[in-house]
Amino acid sequence: MTTLQDCRARDAQDPLRSLREHFTLPDGTLYLDGNSLGALPRAAPARVAQVVAQEWGQDLITSWNKAGWVDLPARLGDQFAPWIGAGQGQVVFTDTTSINLFKVLTAAARVARADAPQRTRVVSERSNFPTDLYIAQSVCEQHGLQLALVEPDEIDAELQAGDVAILLLTHVNYRTGAMHDMAAVTARAHAHGALCVWDLCHSAGAVPVDLLGADADYAVGCGYKYLNGGPGAPAFVWAHPRLAGRFAQPLSGWFGHAAPFAFTPDYQPAPGIGRYLCGTQPILSLSALQCGLDVFSAAELLGGMAALRAKSLALTDLFIELVETHCAGHGLALATPREHALRGSQVSLTRDENAYAIVQALIARGVVGDFRKGDGGAGLHKDILRFGFTPLYTRFEDVWRAAQHLREVLETGEWQRPQFHQINAVT
Amino acid sequence: MTTLQDCRARDAQDPLRSLREHFTLPDGTLYLDGNSLGALPRAAPARVAQVVAQEWGQDLITSWNKAGWVDLPARLGDQFAPWIGAGQGQVVFTDTTSINLFKVLTAAARVARADAPQRTRVVSERSNFPTDLYIAQSVCEQHGLQLALVEPDEIDAELQAGDVAILLLTHVNYRTGAMHDMAAVTARAHAHGALCVWDLCHSAGAVPVDLLGADADYAVGCGYKYLNGGPGAPAFVWAHPRLAGRFAQPLSGWFGHAAPFAFTPDYQPAPGIGRYLCGTQPILSLSALQCGLDVFSAAELLGGMAALRAKSLALTDLFIELVETHCAGHGLALATPREHALRGSQVSLTRDENAYAIVQALIARGVVGDFRKGDGGAGLHKDILRFGFTPLYTRFEDVWRAAQHLREVLETGEWQRPQFHQINAVT
Repeated sequence: MTTLQDCRARDAQDPLRSLREHFTLPDGTLYLDGNSLGALPRAAPARVAQVVAQEWGQDLITSWNKAGWVDLPARLGDQFAPWIGAGQGQVVFTDTTSINLFKVLTAAARVARADAPQRTRVVSERSNFPTDLYIAQSVCEQHGLQLALVEPDEIDAELQAGDVAILLLTHVNYRTGAMHDMAAVTARAHAHGALCVWDLCHSAGAVPVDLLGADADYAVGCGYKYLNGGPGAPAFVWAHPRLAGRFAQPLSGWFGHAAPFAFTPDYQPAPGIGRYLCGTQPILSLSALQCGLDVFSAAELLGGMAALRAKSLALTDLFIELVETHCAGHGLALATPREHALRGSQVSLTRDENAYAIVQALIARGVVGDFRKGDGGAGLHKDILRFGFTPLYTRFEDVWRAAQHLREVLETGEWQRPQFHQINAVT
Repeated sequence: MTTLQDCRARDAQDPLRSLREHFTLPDGTLYLDGNSLGALPRAAPARVAQVVAQEWGQDLITSWNKAGWVDLPARLGDQFAPWIGAGQGQVVFTDTTSINLFKVLTAAARVARADAPQRTRVVSERSNFPTDLYIAQSVCEQHGLQLALVEPDEIDAELQAGDVAILLLTHVNYRTGAMHDMAAVTARAHAHGALCVWDLCHSAGAVPVDLLGADADYAVGCGYKYLNGGPGAPAFVWAHPRLAGRFAQPLSGWFGHAAPFAFTPDYQPAPGIGRYLCGTQPILSLSALQCGLDVFSAAELLGGMAALRAKSLALTDLFIELVETHCAGHGLALATPREHALRGSQVSLTRDENAYAIVQALIARGVVGDFRKGDGGAGLHKDILRFGFTPLYTRFEDVWRAAQHLREVLETGEWQRPQFHQINAVT
């Protein structure tokens, strides 16, 4: 059975241990919510201060050229592209995940209509992140398509019906942490004539992603979770080169124009992914995001994604082991797959009741995970205690301590205090 | 004839002179480009540093509630609403102008289709800001509408044709600084059965705007020009209360859901303007924007928009007078209307040639205006030297000095130097 000493020994031997120094983390907190909002990169305060005081305050409008603001979405895209298996010039950071999904789903709908007009359905998972489903509903209404929401094990049967235009999936499920085999699923979608759109919000920067290797069609993902880009950081968007130049996406703003500063009245989309830009981007937020991406550049020198993935699995394996040995008999069950190939970088536990209060009691102890409500339907119906394990800054000792706090909260019953049952707006 | 002494006397008597202290401006620069990127509010560096270091770095995910991040788009909207004649709960700051225009134009198209399906055209000005036209093209293609681009004096005739669904106009033209009579134009549009959508990018915070008084239908505007919100600051969107709850806009992300944190799979739009939100917003950029809006709260105590407008007209009158008296005989002509009721807060000058080099020579002297290319067509075909006069921080003495620099650049011919003819990416 793993001991605290074992955990400390593993931290001492961790080849990635120096990466934690790239972050500022609050004292007395075990932060296991980097899959909701990533921690602050140590470089960000000075970088943002420079952008505010010098680039904005002193250099003003000249910074669009001089400080390279105008290229920031593409430059950050190129910097991060290797971490999702994308090529140079194929990724931009811009707008939000929801808006980028609207762009790629509309583009995919236009491609499908041109190539296979008899295909009239978009298939996704009932337990997909809600905003993905809301955007998909809107695109379907606009294009006369039908949205079909199914369970993961029903996807194959749906594809075999032969009328699926687009398969829209999130790579790692936000509640359970279950991960799809991107290459296998994409291949099945293609074999049945469907385009495959991937949401990488809970996988980019946390698990290996190889978009080109998987022959995916479109992808979007979040800048403020595992990429540590700051609250509401711009999101990214990728389109396979065979598709990026087909059709204009409908948010045809001037930054996606082939010649934005020619100020011509007719829209001419930029070649490739450049057309997925729309309006003027929030430079302060993009600048903070760059500090998050810079940590990945440092991680590249220490083993890159292979090392991050190995540590992520070791952290989640350890948490599962400790919860099952130290917290047994308290009604917790594992929602996250045990099999490594099916697991993201989080561990989700279910409980019949009071999951919310238990999460609140942990937060009061400085152990920050979060709560996600069960969907009450045919998907995962039980409430979830969710713990994200970011390999960039989480230590094995943190995992030990988090498990002990969970044990104590359960054994003492302190979650029964009334204040832990008060519902916040965002949980 | 106005003298430098006169200008200094006017500065000394200016009831708004203290507002300049709310900004940090670079030494040795006369900044006349606040209509492209507003200056840095003095409070912004500390505020952004606090958001980065404390709210993000220390409080992390709890800041969505504790620091009020989740309500920031609506809170800033309420703070600024009176400056555009909008009511509380009617405005949100979010996304970009282009994206917000896509939302309102699509909503307007849906309303028009429901109420007057025989109306099939969207009318705008050929010299409207290009991104507005690009977005309008996209919305028209999506909804089977035709976009008609006309000259300002042709708008009435277009409306009389009786088939116009939407009139899309920018209140103050970005090149000429010419301003529409919003109430009169809106009334004419309504009389002919068309909805009226206003882009306030070059008017919000600079000239009086009364959306409810004008009975306008929808409006969008920019956060980083006269509002001084920082590079790429989120934009705002307004819909008249009679329309805000009609139809969902197509960017149906979770932040526009009636219960975003219920995580239900079906989209239910929030009531009113809340449905115009989509994804998670860039909090660092929104926080800087708040500092820009706070200066308007200070301006309210010194006479509000009436005082700002009086100063703006005095500044632009003065610049016109000084250019016409001191820079005569150098081929400059006035593109901005002399009539106060038709003028925004900028002065645009045309010249047959070398306008770009003259602007560059001025910038080299620290006089920052900007250049806008003529459209080469039936609109304003000559190139423009554009000077924005932000009444919040521009002094009468600045106007004097800018005019003298312009005179010297023209008299010495220093604009002929090769370096002033080199084209930058963003101009």
